Amino acid sequence: MVAFGGNALLRAGQKGSFAEQLENVERTCGQLRHLVERGYDLVIGHGNGPQVGNVMLQHEAGRKEFGLPAMPMDFCGAETQGSIAYLIETGLEKVLKEAGIQRHVVSVVTRVEVSADDPMFPNPTKFVGPYYQEAPQDGATYRPDPRGLGWRKVVASPRPVKINNIDIVEQLARQGHIVITVGGGGIPVVATAEGHRGVEAVIDKDLASALAAVTMKADEFYILTDVPKVFVNFHKPEERPLDVMTVAQAREYLAQGQFAEGSMAPKVRAGIAFVENGGKQCIITEAGALEDPSCGTRIIR
Amino acid sequence: MVAFGGNALLRAGQKGSFAEQLENVERTCGQLRHLVERGYDLVIGHGNGPQVGNVMLQHEAGRKEFGLPAMPMDFCGAETQGSIAYLIETGLEKVLKEAGIQRHVVSVVTRVEVSADDPMFPNPTKFVGPYYQEAPQDGATYRPDPRGLGWRKVVASPRPVKINNIDIVEQLARQGHIVITVGGGGIPVVATAEGHRGVEAVIDKDLASALAAVTMKADEFYILTDVPKVFVNFHKPEERPLDVMTVAQAREYLAQGQFAEGSMAPKVRAGIAFVENGGKQCIITEAGALEDPSCGTRIIR
Repeated sequence: MVAFGGNALLRAGQKGSFAEQLENVERTCGQLRHLVERGYDLVIGHGNGPQVGNVMLQHEAGRKEFGLPAMPMDFCGAETQGSIAYLIETGLEKVLKEAGIQRHVVSVVTRVEVSADDPMFPNPTKFVGPYYQEAPQDGATYRPDPRGLGWRKVVASPRPVKINNIDIVEQLARQGHIVITVGGGGIPVVATAEGHRGVEAVIDKDLASALAAVTMKADEFYILTDVPKVFVNFHKPEERPLDVMTVAQAREYLAQGQFAEGSMAPKVRAGIAFVENGGKQCIITEAGALEDPSCGTRIIR
Repeated sequence: MVAFGGNALLRAGQKGSFAEQLENVERTCGQLRHLVERGYDLVIGHGNGPQVGNVMLQHEAGRKEFGLPAMPMDFCGAETQGSIAYLIETGLEKVLKEAGIQRHVVSVVTRVEVSADDPMFPNPTKFVGPYYQEAPQDGATYRPDPRGLGWRKVVASPRPVKINNIDIVEQLARQGHIVITVGGGGIPVVATAEGHRGVEAVIDKDLASALAAVTMKADEFYILTDVPKVFVNFHKPEERPLDVMTVAQAREYLAQGQFAEGSMAPKVRAGIAFVENGGKQCIITEAGALEDPSCGTRIIR
């Protein structure tokens, strides 16, 4: 299982034209080639932060200009699952062709169940979507942006409980197909008497990918980020990269506040969740380092 | 194989709020229940006309208001594959739950290959997306809207040649899963030295579904529309519904101009394509008639 962020495809400072996103996805897929060549059965999870942000802005602009309904965030996330999968399929196909490797790439739209009782729901903290001069009265929660830019929707980041269709994803992957799933952490849904229904929320894509990896009994879980290794004392004189850490060590570093929230800390927690639930090792590294089989920081039992 | 239009989910005259679209999809899925209960291995293809139109408007509004790049139509179509699949999965899950039927519903993002030499490409005729006061200079083809509303992008409607991953779709369907594919007729791509690349075009969703059905050796192909049967002399005093027509009869009616272009004619052609290439029968009807196993107009060899 490999997880990478939506910013691997739409970089900060870029407008995100189709050409730019295609170039980015080709670079990332070119780096994944090393995993493909090592013969892994590969499942890919990806983020969608910049992309779903753009979709929400487009919906808001379409509402103002054309009177089109702005759709809830789960719907917007589903849109990005389609578009990002299309980009990754295009990028991977090019790489496989160059490498002379015949494998299918198949993308599954993925709903991910969260609990309606998740403790995060009563206290949403994640700012998403456009800024408003006044909070819309549409049932969602809005809070003043901390930088004073206006009101903004806030949603919860509940824990993923179950990945829909993960058994099908596993079956396809074990047949040798490269499978793309849990885009943006998955479309968040809760169980109801009428089946699963969407909720406005953001599921951490590393946690969703970890759950997918555990459920599929994946051997290894790669979390790709923008540094080659996890560091302790990051950005301090005594900064030190880690080659390996046990779950116990990882927990201790977390307790020390060694890893930034919203950045490395959730990745380390996702790695712990994987290894504690049967995974052999979680490797946190940057895509550019994948050529070296001993790259990154390994979390082991 | 069952194909239905994007207007089954977003009806003319509706703004298309999430609640409206969910209600529509639940109605359509409720009608599909009869096919599910008859034990078919079911693959669903769907259109995206109203939905991709909205996405293109949202991109244009987002470009004007926030400076976000408007993405090409293939990218927009990929977005609708994600969002419409999400809606159909939600609607079908409710119906299956009510019926006490345990089946997976799985949605596959689907690229469909067209030929770069398709004779339609030099002469695009399908108007799509927003109206402009002046034709944008972005490499796409723009023509004056016939009603004088401004300039509008025109794209070709090339013939589908190959459905990507259709073998995987067939495998999943034959395992009993309900599979959603070729959304909006598929994301149109052409073969290049670097793998398949997207093109701005609209693939007829009935033709794409017919090709999917033929490739999977489906027994039957249902094309759902807004009339219970195909009529000859439609809207004339001697109007007559057809219970059955052979391929030869269907061709003759087409030659007589009995079926409207852009409406019933392409459905009949898709039905002919299916039956001529090994399918047992194509049934053209409305979703509301599916309860009756002898519903609709059958095209047979």
